[in-house]
Amino acid sequence: MTGGVEERDQSVSLDLLKQKMANFAKERDWDQFHSPRNLLLALVGEVGELSEIFQWKGEVPKGLPDWKEEEKVHLGEELSDVLLYLVRLSDICGIDLGKAALRKVELNAIKYPASKKNFNTSNGTARTG
Amino acid sequence: MTGGVEERDQSVSLDLLKQKMANFAKERDWDQFHSPRNLLLALVGEVGELSEIFQWKGEVPKGLPDWKEEEKVHLGEELSDVLLYLVRLSDICGIDLGKAALRKVELNAIKYPASKKNFNTSNGTARTG
Amino acid sequence: MTGGVEERDQSVSLDLLKQKMANFAKERDWDQFHSPRNLLLALVGEVGELSEIFQWKGEVPKGLPDWKEEEKVHLGEELSDVLLYLVRLSDICGIDLGKAALRKVELNAIKYPASKKNFNTSNGTARTG
Amino acid sequence: MTGGVEERDQSVSLDLLKQKMANFAKERDWDQFHSPRNLLLALVGEVGELSEIFQWKGEVPKGLPDWKEEEKVHLGEELSDVLLYLVRLSDICGIDLGKAALRKVELNAIKYPASKKNFNTSNGTARTG
Repeated sequence: MTGGVEERDQSVSLDLLKQKMANFAKERDWDQFHSPRNLLLALVGEVGELSEIFQWKGEVPKGLPDWKEEEKVHLGEELSDVLLYLVRLSDICGIDLGKAALRKVELNAIKYPASKKNFNTSNGTARTG
Repeated sequence: MTGGVEERDQSVSLDLLKQKMANFAKERDWDQFHSPRNLLLALVGEVGELSEIFQWKGEVPKGLPDWKEEEKVHLGEELSDVLLYLVRLSDICGIDLGKAALRKVELNAIKYPASKKNFNTSNGTARTG
Repeated sequence: MTGGVEERDQSVSLDLLKQKMANFAKERDWDQFHSPRNLLLALVGEVGELSEIFQWKGEVPKGLPDWKEEEKVHLGEELSDVLLYLVRLSDICGIDLGKAALRKVELNAIKYPASKKNFNTSNGTARTG
Repeated sequence: MTGGVEERDQSVSLDLLKQKMANFAKERDWDQFHSPRNLLLALVGEVGELSEIFQWKGEVPKGLPDWKEEEKVHLGEELSDVLLYLVRLSDICGIDLGKAALRKVELNAIKYPASKKNFNTSNGTARTG
């Protein structure tokens, strides 16, 4: 494969997804339904579906070594649904999600200096980055 | 790289965020805490914080015209927290989130053809794209 | 009042639900799956289904005057699913949910004195009771 | 009141909680904020707080044998917050939560006969009762 597709797959940007979803909604005349709180509740619905995948499994090791391929595909779809609503919600709210995320990583780096490795599991203060 | 910062801000990729968070966790020795279900519950916690921003507001118009700047900044942080845990969860599960999201948009386009604009508000079948 | 059914319906107690679910799980040999985090994720899944009912509706008036009977029945089922997992989770964690709830109402009454009616919609401090 | 407290604590009913919260909201002039979707998002916020308690703990054994008393008290408060919003949301929607929950237990008993103990952990079909 030459050119764009492979490259695109390797570095999907939030702006690309934002644009795809804006087009998607426009083509279907769905903008009228995409209010902030509608999208937020839709996102909560997708987080619920994501949780259902993990609900009866007990602890799950990294990389999901024992999962069937179809389960992983399903997981990818639910993770995507959460992402797509999150991107759409941000867009509708006028928030630049990519910029906000980079800023948040920087704020987290200040809040949790790398030199201090203490992790408080009692009150859940650890962040991902 | 020339002019990198501006360019980066304009097209933040999921891979960039994934890499930043992997580094973040490694520098703090937090990989041990980043199991799939731990990260999932952390994501649910952040969705809760996102919901709290909207909970007493009644319907909110697009673009959040009446919100104070500090409220929008707070919103951007909570949206980011959800995104960062989602990216991290995907990484730990071995899912390529960007590729999965592009695929999901394509599946949605098949499921909801643009020519059919019917939107079933009763059972919530409308997707973002 | 004579006849247990009517009385039972009018004052369903948390302990009754707890007992029913403990029996339900035991009869099906499901105790092995009812760990705290499994139940918590199941609860999140049900909250997602509850949210889906409301997701595309925009603001909904109290009493749901325009909803069809079947929609209300469905809503009752999803509200119940959340409740049943909440009761089961509490039981498995060794928490007396009824006692805890009464205590929380009292704590809320101290935190939000009835004489002060200010309600902070920005940071979502209002509680239900 | 003679012997009332102990008896009350042992069988807290959903109707009692409903009444307490209705009074609580009325005394504070909060009915105006208690719309269905406001309460739903508040519930999601509390589910987030509940999840935060469990997020970094890995698998947690039944009965929480290693938890400090203060952690259990905190857990009881968050479980209660979810319950109180759930009861309030049901009331505002005109749903009799206790009656709906008893009905749902009966429906689940039909859906999952006690004689069939198969539990499908792949698609998460097991219910609590």
